[in-house]
Amino acid sequence: MNRIPVTSPASVAVFRRILTHGPLGRVDISRATGLSQAAVTKAVTPLIGAGFVVETDDPRAAPTIGRPISPLAVARDRAHIIGIKITAERTYGVLTDLGASVLARTDEVNRSSAVDHVIEAVRAVVDTLSAASPTPVDGIGVAVSGDVDRESGIVRDSPLLGWHGVPLAHILEESIGIPTILENDVRALTTTEVLFGSGRDADSFAVVTIGTGIGCGLYLNGKVVQGAHGVAGEIGHLPLGPVDAVCSCGRRGCVEAVASTAAILNDIRAGHDDPSLTVEDAFALAHADDAVARAAFERAGGVIGSALAALVNLTGPELVVIAGENVTEYGLYEDRLRETFAEHAFGAASDCAIVLRPHVFDDWARGAAACVIEDIASGIATGR
Amino acid sequence: MNRIPVTSPASVAVFRRILTHGPLGRVDISRATGLSQAAVTKAVTPLIGAGFVVETDDPRAAPTIGRPISPLAVARDRAHIIGIKITAERTYGVLTDLGASVLARTDEVNRSSAVDHVIEAVRAVVDTLSAASPTPVDGIGVAVSGDVDRESGIVRDSPLLGWHGVPLAHILEESIGIPTILENDVRALTTTEVLFGSGRDADSFAVVTIGTGIGCGLYLNGKVVQGAHGVAGEIGHLPLGPVDAVCSCGRRGCVEAVASTAAILNDIRAGHDDPSLTVEDAFALAHADDAVARAAFERAGGVIGSALAALVNLTGPELVVIAGENVTEYGLYEDRLRETFAEHAFGAASDCAIVLRPHVFDDWARGAAACVIEDIASGIATGR
Ligand SMILES: [Zn+2]
Ligand SMILES: [Zn+2]
Repeated sequence: MNRIPVTSPASVAVFRRILTHGPLGRVDISRATGLSQAAVTKAVTPLIGAGFVVETDDPRAAPTIGRPISPLAVARDRAHIIGIKITAERTYGVLTDLGASVLARTDEVNRSSAVDHVIEAVRAVVDTLSAASPTPVDGIGVAVSGDVDRESGIVRDSPLLGWHGVPLAHILEESIGIPTILENDVRALTTTEVLFGSGRDADSFAVVTIGTGIGCGLYLNGKVVQGAHGVAGEIGHLPLGPVDAVCSCGRRGCVEAVASTAAILNDIRAGHDDPSLTVEDAFALAHADDAVARAAFERAGGVIGSALAALVNLTGPELVVIAGENVTEYGLYEDRLRETFAEHAFGAASDCAIVLRPHVFDDWARGAAACVIEDIASGIATGR
Repeated sequence: MNRIPVTSPASVAVFRRILTHGPLGRVDISRATGLSQAAVTKAVTPLIGAGFVVETDDPRAAPTIGRPISPLAVARDRAHIIGIKITAERTYGVLTDLGASVLARTDEVNRSSAVDHVIEAVRAVVDTLSAASPTPVDGIGVAVSGDVDRESGIVRDSPLLGWHGVPLAHILEESIGIPTILENDVRALTTTEVLFGSGRDADSFAVVTIGTGIGCGLYLNGKVVQGAHGVAGEIGHLPLGPVDAVCSCGRRGCVEAVASTAAILNDIRAGHDDPSLTVEDAFALAHADDAVARAAFERAGGVIGSALAALVNLTGPELVVIAGENVTEYGLYEDRLRETFAEHAFGAASDCAIVLRPHVFDDWARGAAACVIEDIASGIATGR
């Protein structure tokens, strides 16, 4: 990877501050990093020289009084990144600049979820987006659900894809010739929040994704929690539901067994004795105040609220960001969720803010790109 | 505080390695820290000069072949620390050296749990231990259960003491004239494990304490998790128990409502319709295979096992250390605990080892001393 030049430990801190908060004046960088202004200038000069930072005239960063200075910003065009999210049916891709702005998007149907067919789809996505890129693509980020080892680039276990022990990063690098970073999809989304979202100013936070699955990314003590054995953030499989609820993972009493979209749909189908109901029907019924549908969503909200309390009681984040793909759906269980959360959050843990951040499906792929940006900003070659 | 001199970022890394793994040869320090041998020597010289590190002839660190070298060790006598654990009834104290070895211990009855009476007891403990110290005491660490803010030195909320917003560190510093660090008791115990126990070689781990209360300290991404709002590790108040179980905290369904010593005792008293049974009676009954007592312990083990699964699914530590004050008691529910853990641990999270570390009550106070040692080793003045 084409990473920032590191001339001192200050380089990384200064670039990161500009990346996450720029455009910024040198004084602001000095204040935020605790470095002297001289140290900031010393760190910034090689970053400008290598083209990663530019001096701008952005009025947002100009002082209202005093002599005008040139604030510093990331040179967005300095790198172009492809972020990819793989699902069993489709492969989604976005092209971003170094600031994670999406410049182009595409998706491809996978002929099947077999590794070869998915790689075929990834290649097609990369071809399309490379053609759209103003400069040769610097890196590819790939997000996959399940147990993924970023360091070795191996998909250890992805139940949704049916993959076990697939050295995906290596295969793609060999096949495409562009440095590739593999990450768990929820951790990738969390990385976007760390660099460009709610996490920019938080010392700790959690991202909870609710939908087909229920996942969680945790940012604690300055890093996204990876899990020593590859597993972390599995909030969807906390045993907080009733024992008679069987989860797609085979266990009993998981949160997902009550609160995933499929579980809610099953509840509503059973209540109406109508197995033909679709997800859209289920949402429509709930919004039309159908008692069965409302009860199913409230049950889901209750279990998710308990799960958030468990998360907060254990890890004490500053805030929890709910990354909702479907905001209208969230309204169906938010009250019950907040009620159960308040009931079980311990003491000051209940001060933890729960905020909703609507997101679109391409945000998964953008998260994968953010992992590459994080790597470029680290200045250090890692992994394989 | 009389902290190590920091001449470069390497100073802290080198001293920490010697503290946690010494006596060590320079080559081993270089290998472990990734610093060149020259950088290690450069970092070590001022540490030796200031008396924090000594060259030893410890044969454990001597090479079996090659010319003999002097391994480096922490100068244990360089600092003396008092660690204190406050409970509602008593104040416990230990005097340790810089290596956390306990040189003396004492305890005092508190006239009441009122702040003034506890401070009186702390002063008596400090007087006794100061008299036993070979050098003037460098720092005092104080461990208190509940919501404690280490940085400001304030006990925000300690239900067991009935304290709210007590600036204890400040009060003690004013009254005694020795720098004081305040920490939550479970986090203090976790700090001992980080520096001198199971955590020395783990990238992440959790300490779970089981007894009167059920608590948890988490070490993730290189630090003990503090909790943005002062709360973290409250594994005893995860809503994993039945809704009819009311906890001492007032909430329903907490782990402690089923698995604390008091909850188990209540179960056994109710089962035998004998409110006069003591804790000792309850243990004796269980060890004598009394069905009611066994069922109560198994119920506790089941809930603790679920709680450990929740902990591991969310945070993915390398290992979980169960800090048991009463090892014979642990045998009464270990099987059920491991069974429920295996049932709910998600995928590779079940690879997380669960190890028992018997401990004595003075380990709480020793943990408070470890927090002071951590502070000395950081080289940086923090807090108030
Ligand atoms: Zn499950
Ligand atoms: Zn409770």
